[in-house]
Amino acid sequence: MEQIDDRQIKEDDRHYVLHAWSKQKDVQPKIIKKADGIFFWDDSDKKYYDMCSQLVYLNVGHNHPKLMEEFRHIGEIPLASPGFATASKAELARKIIEVAPKNMAKVFFANGGADSNDHAVKIARMVTGRYKIFSRYRSYHGATFGAGNLSGENRRFTVEPGLPGFIKFETPYLYREKVKFENEEAAAAFYLDRLNSQILYEGPDSIAAIFMETIPGSNGVLIPPKGYMEGVRELCTKYGILMICDEVMSGFGRTGKMFAVDHFDLEPDIMTFAKGVTCGYSPLGGVIVSEEVAKYFDDHVLMTGLTYSGHTVSTQIGCATLDIYKDEDLIEHAAEMGKVLAARLEQLREFASVGDVRHIGLFAAVELVKNKQTKEPIISYGMDYGKDAVGLMKKFVGLLMEQGFYTYSHESSVMVAPPLIITEQQINEAMDLFEHALMKFEREDLFADQPLMAK
Amino acid sequence: MEQIDDRQIKEDDRHYVLHAWSKQKDVQPKIIKKADGIFFWDDSDKKYYDMCSQLVYLNVGHNHPKLMEEFRHIGEIPLASPGFATASKAELARKIIEVAPKNMAKVFFANGGADSNDHAVKIARMVTGRYKIFSRYRSYHGATFGAGNLSGENRRFTVEPGLPGFIKFETPYLYREKVKFENEEAAAAFYLDRLNSQILYEGPDSIAAIFMETIPGSNGVLIPPKGYMEGVRELCTKYGILMICDEVMSGFGRTGKMFAVDHFDLEPDIMTFAKGVTCGYSPLGGVIVSEEVAKYFDDHVLMTGLTYSGHTVSTQIGCATLDIYKDEDLIEHAAEMGKVLAARLEQLREFASVGDVRHIGLFAAVELVKNKQTKEPIISYGMDYGKDAVGLMKKFVGLLMEQGFYTYSHESSVMVAPPLIITEQQINEAMDLFEHALMKFEREDLFADQPLMAK
Repeated sequence: MEQIDDRQIKEDDRHYVLHAWSKQKDVQPKIIKKADGIFFWDDSDKKYYDMCSQLVYLNVGHNHPKLMEEFRHIGEIPLASPGFATASKAELARKIIEVAPKNMAKVFFANGGADSNDHAVKIARMVTGRYKIFSRYRSYHGATFGAGNLSGENRRFTVEPGLPGFIKFETPYLYREKVKFENEEAAAAFYLDRLNSQILYEGPDSIAAIFMETIPGSNGVLIPPKGYMEGVRELCTKYGILMICDEVMSGFGRTGKMFAVDHFDLEPDIMTFAKGVTCGYSPLGGVIVSEEVAKYFDDHVLMTGLTYSGHTVSTQIGCATLDIYKDEDLIEHAAEMGKVLAARLEQLREFASVGDVRHIGLFAAVELVKNKQTKEPIISYGMDYGKDAVGLMKKFVGLLMEQGFYTYSHESSVMVAPPLIITEQQINEAMDLFEHALMKFEREDLFADQPLMAK
Repeated sequence: MEQIDDRQIKEDDRHYVLHAWSKQKDVQPKIIKKADGIFFWDDSDKKYYDMCSQLVYLNVGHNHPKLMEEFRHIGEIPLASPGFATASKAELARKIIEVAPKNMAKVFFANGGADSNDHAVKIARMVTGRYKIFSRYRSYHGATFGAGNLSGENRRFTVEPGLPGFIKFETPYLYREKVKFENEEAAAAFYLDRLNSQILYEGPDSIAAIFMETIPGSNGVLIPPKGYMEGVRELCTKYGILMICDEVMSGFGRTGKMFAVDHFDLEPDIMTFAKGVTCGYSPLGGVIVSEEVAKYFDDHVLMTGLTYSGHTVSTQIGCATLDIYKDEDLIEHAAEMGKVLAARLEQLREFASVGDVRHIGLFAAVELVKNKQTKEPIISYGMDYGKDAVGLMKKFVGLLMEQGFYTYSHESSVMVAPPLIITEQQINEAMDLFEHALMKFEREDLFADQPLMAK
């Protein structure tokens, strides 16, 4: 690497780099100069609590010494293309199967979440011989054409006109549901009945898979009502449809269990993963398939692939990452810290601008509203990338940053998903910052022209 | 990493790993125990000339000391998600633009070739506001849904029913063309006329891009006739269509120039890359866009992205790789060695089973036939993954492996694409092995039941 000063890095960035999901003239990136654990420091030496683990992948935190050490062992296993067996690929596949639901048998490796989802769709079609794929509104599965067509929010519009046979159904979103239910089970029954109808309308025999983020992440950590996931499993089994759970964001301890599906009484047929498998230290994703799905490919050609399937370096980093989860009891720690975070989040409900808080383990979202009674959202649906509509949410995220609380928002929800290594004290410190930002936001932006509201 | 013996690695591989493009029960992977430069050794200590650079990515060869050293510096730049500027991302983007065609301005980073192609299609649609995408039969662009739908061979069938608006046209393939031409220019004119008609039939105003591997790789290194590429450029300019060149395999010195487009008198609007940018030492791909395309995104949101866009480690490895190309004069060396390889390949035409040889730099294919006069192919089109149809080609590749010449085949063509660091002596040694295998193949398999044919 050349020695280039910060000014030149920013200059080169502006000149030569296209930034995702942005108007380039609006991009004014910071530089992370130093990072350690849950913290990083920018180029003006400001310290941040990384409360979204970058993009919800740094589960073990920044600069983990064991992963840094692992990079010094790169080269001990020669690079090999997918046709070879390698120690790291074999070991990581075994380690993943050891922690996956009992029925899971084999792993197909890809580069990230998006392409893993593309491959999973192809696998489901091959196994079932059917072509329709159900996925949900208010979901995000990635930006390749398969993953983009699975996605149920506005980031999918650039992969349209869409893939034939990709059908959307509703995600349970109780906070904004107009129907009122006695309890979660009643809500689950309502959504399952509608899903059942839609399956019948579309023709069960043509549906290969129902594809869901186990818990939709960027769309606001939408935790399914009790019984819902098990009900989807039952419908899948009844109609011979494969149940595919996208665990790209929710997998590897994020929810306080190894996978989010472990919170429910079910076994999916296929799962996809990425992020937490290497915590982003090296790009890696993949598809986990059940014994039954795996068996199909004993005698049928698996008609998909990629140059870096089971990349030697990435799987080696993956092995070290899975060791860290185990050696440091990180999954249990995440569950414990999830309780601390939950308590702090529930307190936020007292704020006039907090419509809902949703949390499971260290996977949480705070949904803001302009008016608690009417639930008027800060941003209308789909306006994240609109002209000025992001104004208020951008302001709030800016206030969080000012406080040193680093995260991102989507629609009116703010993500709270710190590295799993976070401590009780750090959660409390960070959530104090969140509250300060929220108070300032209400006072100076949201309700500036209104008489003071009671908290 | 655990210390596991080879038997256990293979056992775990068989139990836990899904291998691409294969019936799993047929997979009997070797292990690469040691690798250096253009050589590797398998688990029975057999030495191979890696004559396809694994999957045409190891341009700098196995175990390059400078890249191995670079891994020891990982961690000096903190990991950062795409919104940040990083030294390695900015430096690599600048370095790529410095060696790309003059009109190229900015880089969008992705994980590999396939997803880069998906993103390129999206970019073309955004910029033009049009939705149709032209790509070619006998092409391979990857296995995600976008790249798969771009691809013009049978590996695309699992992404069908396909994306609306993805249209295929013919790749010039002179060896099998029924029309006879006076010269290459006449051939180019013929194909361009047909392309022009097809553009008119489809409606020029609805066509966003013409997407081509500059030189189709796995489909047999199909080098375009003189004037063809420039003619496509003219048609694109005439109709306001973006010209996208897939340089995933052909980029970074493979053809004896930095990019394959540098062989022609043209500037594409968009290029995609992967493989050679890091030589597979870390997964990385991307999209290079012209000044004009880049400008569009100053004021319009680039509606695509991925978690690892500009991955810190991968871009750092990319910087080191580009330095190696420069410091070791590898591009010029590849051009020189290309001449040595060309001479040896041309000699192969004397073999009764060699229908055609095609080569540019160190990017070459040998097309085998059952009968030189009728050009009857070893494998009928699309039968690569058929039941027993691969028999003869599989046998030949097996014979090559037996000789210690490692490569792969597609249809009836065998890839010859060694690391760019290969020496004259090594080329001659490897091609001797190729000839031995070919003699044995003709004698024992192909013409075993026929009277001896004159060479």
